[in-house]
Amino acid sequence: MEAVSRSAPPESFRVTFEPGSLRAEVPAGTSILEAARAAGVLLDTPCGGEGFCGKCRVRVRSGKVDPGETELLDAEEVAAGWVLACRASVAGNLAVEVPPGSVERFRGAEVEPAAADAAAPSGPLDPLVRSVAVEVAAPTLEDNASDFARLARGLRKAGLDGAPRPRPEVLRELPGVLRASGGGVTVTVARDGAAVEVTDVAPAGAARGLALAVDVGTTTIKAELLDLATGRSLGRASKYNSQAAYGGDVIHRIIWCTERAGGLDELHGRVMEDIGVLVVRMEEALGVSREAIALVAAAGNTTMMHILLGLSPEHIRREPYVGVAYDPPPVAAGEIGLAVNPRARVYSLPCVSGFVGADIAAGLLAVRLEDSKRPRMLIDIGTNGEIVIGNRDWMVCASASAGPAFEGAGTRDGMRATRGAIDHVRGWDGEVPLDFTVLGDAPPCGLCGTAYVDLLAELLRAGAMDRTGSLNPSHPSGRVRSGPFETPEFVIVRAGERGAARDVVVTQHDIANLERAKGAIYAATKVLLKSLDLDVADLEEILVAGAFGNYLDVENCVFIGLLPDLGRGKIRFAGNTAAAGAAMAALDRASYARARELADGLTYFELSTDPSFMGEFTSACFFPHTNLEEFPSVKARLGPGGG
Amino acid sequence: MEAVSRSAPPESFRVTFEPGSLRAEVPAGTSILEAARAAGVLLDTPCGGEGFCGKCRVRVRSGKVDPGETELLDAEEVAAGWVLACRASVAGNLAVEVPPGSVERFRGAEVEPAAADAAAPSGPLDPLVRSVAVEVAAPTLEDNASDFARLARGLRKAGLDGAPRPRPEVLRELPGVLRASGGGVTVTVARDGAAVEVTDVAPAGAARGLALAVDVGTTTIKAELLDLATGRSLGRASKYNSQAAYGGDVIHRIIWCTERAGGLDELHGRVMEDIGVLVVRMEEALGVSREAIALVAAAGNTTMMHILLGLSPEHIRREPYVGVAYDPPPVAAGEIGLAVNPRARVYSLPCVSGFVGADIAAGLLAVRLEDSKRPRMLIDIGTNGEIVIGNRDWMVCASASAGPAFEGAGTRDGMRATRGAIDHVRGWDGEVPLDFTVLGDAPPCGLCGTAYVDLLAELLRAGAMDRTGSLNPSHPSGRVRSGPFETPEFVIVRAGERGAARDVVVTQHDIANLERAKGAIYAATKVLLKSLDLDVADLEEILVAGAFGNYLDVENCVFIGLLPDLGRGKIRFAGNTAAAGAAMAALDRASYARARELADGLTYFELSTDPSFMGEFTSACFFPHTNLEEFPSVKARLGPGGG
Repeated sequence: MEAVSRSAPPESFRVTFEPGSLRAEVPAGTSILEAARAAGVLLDTPCGGEGFCGKCRVRVRSGKVDPGETELLDAEEVAAGWVLACRASVAGNLAVEVPPGSVERFRGAEVEPAAADAAAPSGPLDPLVRSVAVEVAAPTLEDNASDFARLARGLRKAGLDGAPRPRPEVLRELPGVLRASGGGVTVTVARDGAAVEVTDVAPAGAARGLALAVDVGTTTIKAELLDLATGRSLGRASKYNSQAAYGGDVIHRIIWCTERAGGLDELHGRVMEDIGVLVVRMEEALGVSREAIALVAAAGNTTMMHILLGLSPEHIRREPYVGVAYDPPPVAAGEIGLAVNPRARVYSLPCVSGFVGADIAAGLLAVRLEDSKRPRMLIDIGTNGEIVIGNRDWMVCASASAGPAFEGAGTRDGMRATRGAIDHVRGWDGEVPLDFTVLGDAPPCGLCGTAYVDLLAELLRAGAMDRTGSLNPSHPSGRVRSGPFETPEFVIVRAGERGAARDVVVTQHDIANLERAKGAIYAATKVLLKSLDLDVADLEEILVAGAFGNYLDVENCVFIGLLPDLGRGKIRFAGNTAAAGAAMAALDRASYARARELADGLTYFELSTDPSFMGEFTSACFFPHTNLEEFPSVKARLGPGGG
Repeated sequence: MEAVSRSAPPESFRVTFEPGSLRAEVPAGTSILEAARAAGVLLDTPCGGEGFCGKCRVRVRSGKVDPGETELLDAEEVAAGWVLACRASVAGNLAVEVPPGSVERFRGAEVEPAAADAAAPSGPLDPLVRSVAVEVAAPTLEDNASDFARLARGLRKAGLDGAPRPRPEVLRELPGVLRASGGGVTVTVARDGAAVEVTDVAPAGAARGLALAVDVGTTTIKAELLDLATGRSLGRASKYNSQAAYGGDVIHRIIWCTERAGGLDELHGRVMEDIGVLVVRMEEALGVSREAIALVAAAGNTTMMHILLGLSPEHIRREPYVGVAYDPPPVAAGEIGLAVNPRARVYSLPCVSGFVGADIAAGLLAVRLEDSKRPRMLIDIGTNGEIVIGNRDWMVCASASAGPAFEGAGTRDGMRATRGAIDHVRGWDGEVPLDFTVLGDAPPCGLCGTAYVDLLAELLRAGAMDRTGSLNPSHPSGRVRSGPFETPEFVIVRAGERGAARDVVVTQHDIANLERAKGAIYAATKVLLKSLDLDVADLEEILVAGAFGNYLDVENCVFIGLLPDLGRGKIRFAGNTAAAGAAMAALDRASYARARELADGLTYFELSTDPSFMGEFTSACFFPHTNLEEFPSVKARLGPGGG
């Protein structure tokens, strides 16, 4: 065997990906998915490259390929050169076209500078890390305190309380820096509870005054750059989470971490790279240096937080779903390989349980449920729907596994809210073409979560879909057609329309996924309310957060039964509360402490052991619900027949 | 030039050192001192290899050597093959004999197991690091706290207060260790003020219950192994500080650290190796594993503490004599390269100033000056004499540069208190040979500090030396002879006597060094007392500590004017208070905190700026003093003539 392989090494071929002309040289037989990874092209693979999701479709423009087997492409698509990258393997030099919906994934980050006249935040400013200009007195025979003692005195004069303690590396450099600078230095101090730690001493004028608040989403990573001295935002950046190439939901990520040698290191490396890309783009766009970033505050779900810190998420996946630590102490950026100042301290917002993460703790900081006497609800709609109900006296939470349908995965043409995504669907009257908006002034190539919410509502209103979710093949619009395997699908955009490269559709299968997702979230809401002996009407307000990149139409959410029918004006979209909360914690020690208290005091309600959950879920797998009495406003709109 | 050196590489030769047969292959022209270092033979070079001290003398038994120039060897010695290793260079294959006084320096550590029936210490037992057997409950759906939260609960059940925080490396290993062990684990916890840090989680039964208290002396490193559960000592070990090969006193060590590239790393490496050797020897002799050592508490002078932690001692040497930090936080043993459990925490006892070190803070723990209303004095006699005077209300300290004469350096036949050292001289009557004792049942080859104290007193009593310190060439004993350059010297042992390899003498030059050393210490005492408006008689007690390896005759100390004439029974030898204090701090958090408070509250009195110091010093360069009224007991002994 060995001799054979030595005398005949496998032939290797060049695979070029367009647009972008990224290339890799790979042995014959390599999957196009692997070749893409090697070239730095991260294709979306919610199913982890198992051939189930069909998301990694690419078009081979030239060259010899073994397409492999799949039922997810029809004859026409195969004839046009479409293959699933995870199934197809390289048999010659290839030119591969990556569809627009995937292209942005390797385009890198988008940066949005803050408006020049943006107001400083109104909240308190007492950041977790401070960078202070300090004058250290030269030693004399009368004042011969040690270098560090004189530095500590300088810090007190600069208004910093507490007894500072140095990091070992600071002491190693201190005498040199002090004497080279003539005593004027920039001292960076990190605070954790009562502890005050000197993490860096640099020459006077060294910039160390920035913080990065990071929302590590399963699908999208967002970062906001903050000025520690003023609290102002300098700008935001976001990019696709490269871990998507390893599976679309946390379960697939955990499997990759635990069942492959080096898997955790690999995924940890991806998130370090992603944040690194955001930082580099911000350096270019905002004219700052990464060396100035002395603080990182991060929020994300429990699995993302584990991978961020290099902790094993293995046991989150299996009953009883526990992580390693939910309130880990800050670590040095250099210790985890994060490309900001290596002395920067990375603070994790606290998690609550294996499926209620730091994004929720951050969200609670942002929405302040504790400010009201009547209970309010925070609901975060993502692959897992997390729900918190609480008031000034108590808080209870639950998590429902909804699947990633509303995050643009698990549906044929789902995508995240970025260039080319249809984000809203409007004005349906059963006859005219759908009125929709597309993000980024581009041809439509898929739908993001907000569009699915709108579309389902419009289909229901127009009778193109009944309350069970079945598409009506004889709908007068003529847009319901028979797709592969004779399954009905609704055509939103036809190839060529508005420049679309191919049809954009929602399939009966997609609708079933979306129905289960919204059903799980609604059922969770119901069970949690019931466990508290509350009715929907007892809620003062519902705040909706989540991975939606654009405004959510909350009325449509109620119309399809995703959210309870609380009444107009009492449900509002709260935006990205995870990012907002991470920024609040970075800028205010008391807020960070409050997040830890909130997470600690939050009662977790385990839905999977509740006997009523399955019944509620089944009843909710209907539009809006089997019991229309629970949705009086929808009942009124659907008319006496009830749709 | 390059071509020449390439075509004719310098010849290289083998140098073998006896006893021990350690070898090195070195280029022609290398000094024997460098060859010795390369072979692992650490010769004593108090002067740093500059040719001044004559301590590195070795005998070339065969081979071609260029002896270099020196005035420190006489014709007879040169004829017998003696050379100074720092001056002589290799010109052929050599066999070099290292004299017995040097041999032990590379023999490694001596271990002294504790007596089996030794009593446990009477002090409180609340160690800085604790190793606790913890049962961590398995997670369930009802109790799905994180791994670390359940561990923390287990720690509380085991009686450990406070909110523990994990080290990052602990979290990385925790899920694996917990599940492999079925929940029974050995948890190691380090405490620093209010902080409780989990530094290690190992399978149940893993031994982590030992501490090492280390006295990092300039000349000798001593370590005591302690059982953290009982406070009992398991044994002690000591060895020569290998840094002696780089200079005998701290000034030479600082010069090496700051004026050579990599110098600090090299000296730091030497002390890590030395402690490593002590640990290995203790492993063999006491049947323990280094992995069990979870705590190191270290005391030493300020320069030794800096080098131990890898901090630059550069600025200690020059006015105004400041170090980097005097109260550094604990560091991980692995971070500084110490060969115990890498997770062990290394706590430094606090220093007070550049020349009042952690050995003094440790000494204050041991002697408790604060227990009495009347002031007492602690005096540590070493290369620097440190003096503390204090009572329950205040403490003041000073440091006098005495030179290393009492540590066996700076005198012709001085050596540390080890095998072959004369440690006490007794019973002189002017006629009979000196009565002396030798350590380790070996032929005498030099004198240690306690012997010099005795010898000076006996010479003075017998009239072999007058009160100025001049030897009397016509003394009836016939032992005062004319040495090199016609300088008088007193012969203690003649070659052949009791097996001595060569004469052991004290030279007029030695006496001058000893006189200056004791004069500096006495002057410091006087100036410090005067600054406090106190007389000697106001002191309740004088406690003498120091690098003396054996009991000091305090009466002789008074007789020669090293210590004030406080009166019989009021001066006592307190032993190695630095080592004792380090052990106390290791075993009791409150003691460690007290050492920090004591160091912080100690007022440092700078002698070098006091105008009266020089006058006091000059007056004290006399035996016992120019003003005999200050030494009434000595005056009485010397008789009406006053010697």
